[in-house]
Amino acid sequence: MIPTIKDIGEIKLLNRLKKFMRSGQIDDDVAEIKSIKKDLLINTDLLVEEIHFSEKISNAQDIGWKSISTNVSDLICSGSEKMTSFSVGLVLPPNTNLKWVESLYEGMNQAIQEFGGEIIGGDCSSGAIKIISITAIGEKNEPRLHRGHAIPGDYLVSTGSHGLSKLGLALLKSEKLPSEVQLNSQLIERAIQAHKRPYPAIKALRALKATKPEGTSWRAAGTDSSDGLLESIRGICTSSNCQAIIDRASLPKDPDWPKHSNWNEWCLNGGEDYQLVLCLPKQWAEALSQEYKLAKIIGFIQKGEPNIFWDNLEEINMNSSVLYRHF
Amino acid sequence: MIPTIKDIGEIKLLNRLKKFMRSGQIDDDVAEIKSIKKDLLINTDLLVEEIHFSEKISNAQDIGWKSISTNVSDLICSGSEKMTSFSVGLVLPPNTNLKWVESLYEGMNQAIQEFGGEIIGGDCSSGAIKIISITAIGEKNEPRLHRGHAIPGDYLVSTGSHGLSKLGLALLKSEKLPSEVQLNSQLIERAIQAHKRPYPAIKALRALKATKPEGTSWRAAGTDSSDGLLESIRGICTSSNCQAIIDRASLPKDPDWPKHSNWNEWCLNGGEDYQLVLCLPKQWAEALSQEYKLAKIIGFIQKGEPNIFWDNLEEINMNSSVLYRHF
Repeated sequence: MIPTIKDIGEIKLLNRLKKFMRSGQIDDDVAEIKSIKKDLLINTDLLVEEIHFSEKISNAQDIGWKSISTNVSDLICSGSEKMTSFSVGLVLPPNTNLKWVESLYEGMNQAIQEFGGEIIGGDCSSGAIKIISITAIGEKNEPRLHRGHAIPGDYLVSTGSHGLSKLGLALLKSEKLPSEVQLNSQLIERAIQAHKRPYPAIKALRALKATKPEGTSWRAAGTDSSDGLLESIRGICTSSNCQAIIDRASLPKDPDWPKHSNWNEWCLNGGEDYQLVLCLPKQWAEALSQEYKLAKIIGFIQKGEPNIFWDNLEEINMNSSVLYRHF
Repeated sequence: MIPTIKDIGEIKLLNRLKKFMRSGQIDDDVAEIKSIKKDLLINTDLLVEEIHFSEKISNAQDIGWKSISTNVSDLICSGSEKMTSFSVGLVLPPNTNLKWVESLYEGMNQAIQEFGGEIIGGDCSSGAIKIISITAIGEKNEPRLHRGHAIPGDYLVSTGSHGLSKLGLALLKSEKLPSEVQLNSQLIERAIQAHKRPYPAIKALRALKATKPEGTSWRAAGTDSSDGLLESIRGICTSSNCQAIIDRASLPKDPDWPKHSNWNEWCLNGGEDYQLVLCLPKQWAEALSQEYKLAKIIGFIQKGEPNIFWDNLEEINMNSSVLYRHF
């Protein structure tokens, strides 16, 4: 029989998890972060069972991968290219299998091997549901992307397709699709991968750094689209006090995404896309979209009350019922 | 009618909480930590409803105070005197009152005003139970206390009474006491205060720094007694690979603690005491206990397999059933 964490107790559990953490970490509750003469960025992200993940859909390794990746995505969309430390708070029901917890940490470490950093410690407790609360630290770099740094005249850029994670989840749950259609098998694979193993936009960030035109400043606005494409644009408009115009013909869809307009909604409000949504000077936006093929200019920023319009000036319905929300 | 967080939604909730956080924080998911040319200490602590707190016992302000204080205690018992930043992960059922959340942050800020630092951001999500996951950062200072730094010959020092929080909880829940006895009203007050508003040992840490004898190194072992006095000593013995001898006549009890020996158990294994348990060279231990009246020499460290004995060499029962455990 596979032991539960209640069977082995907290101390033995921590000993079993030693191998996934910075060495020498277990003896003390706190961890050290060495001074590096650089500013740091810090982010906390929660994954709550049945809100952000379901064991019916994802295994423990996938959940571990996702718990690191959502944090990494927040650091990347603030401009941090170098992750350093992860502190892991874990709430688990006492009947959780030890094997499940080890698989969770394996998944975390797969993401850490991909994106950098190390687990430096944390806390664990029993609780009625599984919750993973990770605080991630990365080095601050240029460009320091902010939601509030967009200015009129900026081009709006998405660094990848939107809606795939929502499609993947719907396929995994055998939910109704926006229209009856035969899906390409590669699209299905990409959609399920996007949901189970979201891949933060580290490559897009590197391309963004590499394509800044000489002589221009590092000023750029950005966020990730973890809460959906429209919500990320809404956030930029609100924080930057400006309007966005989106080109309906340029929605950032997968090449195999169904053509029917019913499917636009999932591209706009799917959620968990983890792409960068950027506002850049024209020259930088063009250089990025040429250098990094997945990046696409999807609209522009103009002066005015925070709002989002289609290119025919029709206002986009931001009714909260369609938005990706955790409350 | 008082609105719930579901009524007002995540974005308005965060706007309402702005006043409790570092200014300008809300617009981005991540926060910045300025480089200070010092190493930092970082700690994550979870408070889970019905495991670490109950609304039947504590109000939202008390829970907020406790959520910061448990983290501060971990930093203090590692030697950090200066708290800098707190990142707050909050899981709340959608029907939670907005007023409750604001009171929680008021309690957090009361503790922050007492111990230093600021809330720099975090994350929130709905969930079936309330969970507060805080990651705290403080500056690293001498002495850098570790569980694993005790050596034979050290004196074992407790910086305050143990068992009060357990007594406070029992009184609040009208639970059976270890023996029938008339409790002093001041003891009752201190016990309830210890449970509802635990006060980390910042004053004891300052006294520890001030009393280091000249010419000796900063080497000292320490932890806090958040999981109970015996458990903290067990942790030191295990990490330092040594034995502890405890003087039964010197148990660190409140002056008004009942004399009956049945009450020793709550002093040893009560939990949530948040005192420092230290292993120091004789001279330092004596200087500390003279300077800081609440500090008491309660035993010493000797060579041998990790274990704890009374001064008559009777082994202390570390049966896990009596320990303070969250699993």
